Amino acid sequence: MPSYQPPVADALFVLNDVLKMDQYAHLAGFADASPDIVAAVLEEAAKLASGVLQPLNHSGDQEGCRRADDGSVSTPKGFKAAFEAYAGGGWISLPFDPAYGGQGLPYVLAAAVNEFFAAGNMALSMYPGLTSGAVAALLTHGSEELKQLYAPKMLEGRWTGTMNLTEPHCGTDLGLLKTRATRRDDGSFALSGQKIFISAGEHDLTENIVHLVLARIEGAPKGVKGISLFVVPKFLPDAAGNPGVRNAVSCGSLEHKMGIHGNATCVMNYDDAQGWLLGEENRGLNAMFVMMNEARLAVGLQGLAQSEVAYQNAVAYARDRLQGRSLSGAKNPEKPADPLMVHPDIRRILLEIRSVNEAGRALALWAALQSDISHRSTDAATREKAADLLGLLTPVLKGVMTDRGFENCVQAQQVFGGHGYIVEWGMEQFVRDARIAMIYEGANGIQALDLVGRKLPANGGRAIMALLAEIGLYLKTHDGDEALKPLLGPLNASLGHLQQASLWLMQNGMSSPDNAGAGATDYMHLLGLVLLAYMWAKMAQAAKADQDAGRAEFMQGKQACALFFAQRILPETAVRLARITSGAANVMSLPADLF
Amino acid sequence: MPSYQPPVADALFVLNDVLKMDQYAHLAGFADASPDIVAAVLEEAAKLASGVLQPLNHSGDQEGCRRADDGSVSTPKGFKAAFEAYAGGGWISLPFDPAYGGQGLPYVLAAAVNEFFAAGNMALSMYPGLTSGAVAALLTHGSEELKQLYAPKMLEGRWTGTMNLTEPHCGTDLGLLKTRATRRDDGSFALSGQKIFISAGEHDLTENIVHLVLARIEGAPKGVKGISLFVVPKFLPDAAGNPGVRNAVSCGSLEHKMGIHGNATCVMNYDDAQGWLLGEENRGLNAMFVMMNEARLAVGLQGLAQSEVAYQNAVAYARDRLQGRSLSGAKNPEKPADPLMVHPDIRRILLEIRSVNEAGRALALWAALQSDISHRSTDAATREKAADLLGLLTPVLKGVMTDRGFENCVQAQQVFGGHGYIVEWGMEQFVRDARIAMIYEGANGIQALDLVGRKLPANGGRAIMALLAEIGLYLKTHDGDEALKPLLGPLNASLGHLQQASLWLMQNGMSSPDNAGAGATDYMHLLGLVLLAYMWAKMAQAAKADQDAGRAEFMQGKQACALFFAQRILPETAVRLARITSGAANVMSLPADLF
Repeated sequence: MPSYQPPVADALFVLNDVLKMDQYAHLAGFADASPDIVAAVLEEAAKLASGVLQPLNHSGDQEGCRRADDGSVSTPKGFKAAFEAYAGGGWISLPFDPAYGGQGLPYVLAAAVNEFFAAGNMALSMYPGLTSGAVAALLTHGSEELKQLYAPKMLEGRWTGTMNLTEPHCGTDLGLLKTRATRRDDGSFALSGQKIFISAGEHDLTENIVHLVLARIEGAPKGVKGISLFVVPKFLPDAAGNPGVRNAVSCGSLEHKMGIHGNATCVMNYDDAQGWLLGEENRGLNAMFVMMNEARLAVGLQGLAQSEVAYQNAVAYARDRLQGRSLSGAKNPEKPADPLMVHPDIRRILLEIRSVNEAGRALALWAALQSDISHRSTDAATREKAADLLGLLTPVLKGVMTDRGFENCVQAQQVFGGHGYIVEWGMEQFVRDARIAMIYEGANGIQALDLVGRKLPANGGRAIMALLAEIGLYLKTHDGDEALKPLLGPLNASLGHLQQASLWLMQNGMSSPDNAGAGATDYMHLLGLVLLAYMWAKMAQAAKADQDAGRAEFMQGKQACALFFAQRILPETAVRLARITSGAANVMSLPADLF
Repeated sequence: MPSYQPPVADALFVLNDVLKMDQYAHLAGFADASPDIVAAVLEEAAKLASGVLQPLNHSGDQEGCRRADDGSVSTPKGFKAAFEAYAGGGWISLPFDPAYGGQGLPYVLAAAVNEFFAAGNMALSMYPGLTSGAVAALLTHGSEELKQLYAPKMLEGRWTGTMNLTEPHCGTDLGLLKTRATRRDDGSFALSGQKIFISAGEHDLTENIVHLVLARIEGAPKGVKGISLFVVPKFLPDAAGNPGVRNAVSCGSLEHKMGIHGNATCVMNYDDAQGWLLGEENRGLNAMFVMMNEARLAVGLQGLAQSEVAYQNAVAYARDRLQGRSLSGAKNPEKPADPLMVHPDIRRILLEIRSVNEAGRALALWAALQSDISHRSTDAATREKAADLLGLLTPVLKGVMTDRGFENCVQAQQVFGGHGYIVEWGMEQFVRDARIAMIYEGANGIQALDLVGRKLPANGGRAIMALLAEIGLYLKTHDGDEALKPLLGPLNASLGHLQQASLWLMQNGMSSPDNAGAGATDYMHLLGLVLLAYMWAKMAQAAKADQDAGRAEFMQGKQACALFFAQRILPETAVRLARITSGAANVMSLPADLF
């Protein structure tokens, strides 16, 4: 059975040594997150993740959720107590506004601990995760009344939240949605329709569930400009704000899925269910995007999280399992065989996973920090710059870290040989669970289109040009640094590929959008690779600067991974560039009926 | 629910137009395989695959196999009748020696139809598939008595076969195996020990099961040089050759697996079970390798097969599902949205899958043809050349086609968005089933080591040098061909990468074997890419030569895929070369305890 040790030291290294969180004490909430507090928070989160969530991961997968004939849904054994421990620890409220029950701590800190929770038990962590996303949308777009009524209970974990977008005939293309909202005399609405793939749509963890539902108000314009967002509670709050009358929303069935069996994925039926408008009429997608952007970063963290726990177990197996001899002569002559760890191909797999994970963690936390800055800085220009960067990083984190996270789980499973295919060893669950992260919250192809179609050209390419300039300046600043040279040479080459690809897309994507579409996924991965390499350069630099002899081995690991990444992963940017600049003709010319 | 239409036209194109099977009529059995016979055989196989096997694929996965308390195992509903149809059609006996009940047809023809069967129902096709492998080992190494006793019944499908290698503490490293064989007075042996991961180890499809079991005769040398191979039937044949007394071999439990649920993967217990030596004492691995080489090619075909059926269903979904609008303006303005097929990123996915599949099919059949030549040619030099090439191609087919086959299934699943994650749509089963092909019959890392450690240096590099020369000559011969130029330029560049990598490994792998180990997987994929590109060049050439107007669209698809492969997949060889020549230091320098 797998085990999991949250990478507290790695997260602290990123927060303290790479991102230098202490430089942001002027931002609201950051002063409360002094290094000792941050360390204590991470240690507490680690205990919850490894001691409470992880022990239920495999059993939750095997047991799954069950729906009774009355539409009620039961979660796997132990989930309720674990959820209560999670909520009771204040983990949902951590980064939110104290005016509504939050603790006001940095979002970057929440991101750091959320990785641990998603690694410990992805299916379970989705219940509070979706709640956080729903609260974010509520607090950004909700009326004061709605905020006061719902947010504190959700942050306490007494109520959970969901997001209801998908319908049977539309997922990506929300303009097609049919769920309708009819005005009621009291200013609320009556919603009718069916939603599918609703994670945490029904369960037995809490006394109430707050659905955020996209629907079309009668008479609204067609397409995405006629969609509004509604708050639809399972139980209507009574005068005291407690769960009262049951609303006409119910779980019609549970989906049978490849993984995340511990999370109830529901078909939700709305039959004149009472709901309240959240934000402006016909601006529902806008409001939902707050939730989706949060969610996309969280999903990127899930990719990282599954990859990290899979890595840890693959390392343990590679140390323990005796099989074959080292190619350079027996390393373990007194035993019948050497451990797998002596084999170069096994080490290659492990380093591929780890060098992506550690840079991915730095990238995710860097993005989360931009979210903090974009919301909490008092300087408009600073906020804008951070928002620009966050806009670029979000699709990359979601798309690249889930693509690579899944591949990493597959590779970690491979280390186990035949045992990797056997359920009891737990590795195949990581693969099945990680698979969904490439799909939900916008399939990765959609992330790529968001990047090249929206984020890249926005404001005349302001965001990407600022990023290219930042990395260029970094390279210039460290030009003479001999220790960093083995990293910065390859980074410089790959930055060149990124510049060429960006230019090519700007020149060719405008005139023929199919050129952008045909290169989108490759561009997302190209940008991701450069960003991960940039993170490695910064980490290697921080590792070099660290003079603590007690951390010498820790820093040795960082340096080795940085070099591995530069030499064995980063070269991929050349291929990505070649694919992008090959243009759309080679994908568009074949008539559809000849596929 | 998925459907499957065996690609008969594609297989015929490879056999007739690319490999030109009619040129081999001088080989035993080939004269019986005239073009019309081949076409009829493929059509019959297609009917079995799509009409009998495929309809049981999803239900077989959901139902799985069950073991009763008495150790008997029942296969999913319908499997027994389907197996009988399979056996009754003569599909097991197709390529085997008529002296033992075979039909003597070319193995390349068997390979072509085996793809269809593995695509229709991978779990089910493993029962006859393992039987074929066992017969191959029997006919190559068995005594006349053993051959006559077992082979005809197995080829008829009255008895099935298995291969018993793995034990709990050893899979790859068979030198560690503990199952022991004790001499009995009658010349037979008594076997005791436990084997795990035994596919088709116990079932209700046939009246008897013939286990080929690796074990160590008492007093034999340690390691791989003390391993012998035995025939251990479930029921001991009586004087008339019918199943008699039950042998002391039984299924202790069924493994719980990620996929191939319709195949019974057994823990097999041998408690003084009676067995007969197959081949020479202490040369068991040698005999088993006959079976394993057959099996490796078959597993490569499984990777292709799953990728093909996943592709077909992804294409169907991309045509049907209306979601979003074309980037270049609505293509379907009268409908609420355009089909997925208009989106460049969807087409990119589909063409990635297809362009690997079609070249993979050509490569697999080319390899199978080498097997025929190496066994059936009357000229020793011709046999040797074919055997050399087959030796190179086998690990590539197994490793590359299962790695890419799995990735292709994942990408095909991605086309379905959220529905791809839902069990009822069937796409996730392809992913789970395809996953095992990367692991069994030698994990893909072992294939890569077999390639760089054994096949590459054998006979002073004779095999790889012959292959490089062949492709080089091909390029030279077609140098002035304008139509092929867009393919041959990239192939030439990639061939250069392969030459450099081969040279680098020969120079650096001998002095420091870790250099070979650290580059093994990349070399396997580099060679695979060049081979697939070579196949595309030959297919494009054949397509160009085809003057049949009725096939113009068929050939248009080939040309489009060839170009896609050259422009979007083949560039990867540069990265593989860079990784290989980065050497072993970046994987070996980190101490094991710092992982």
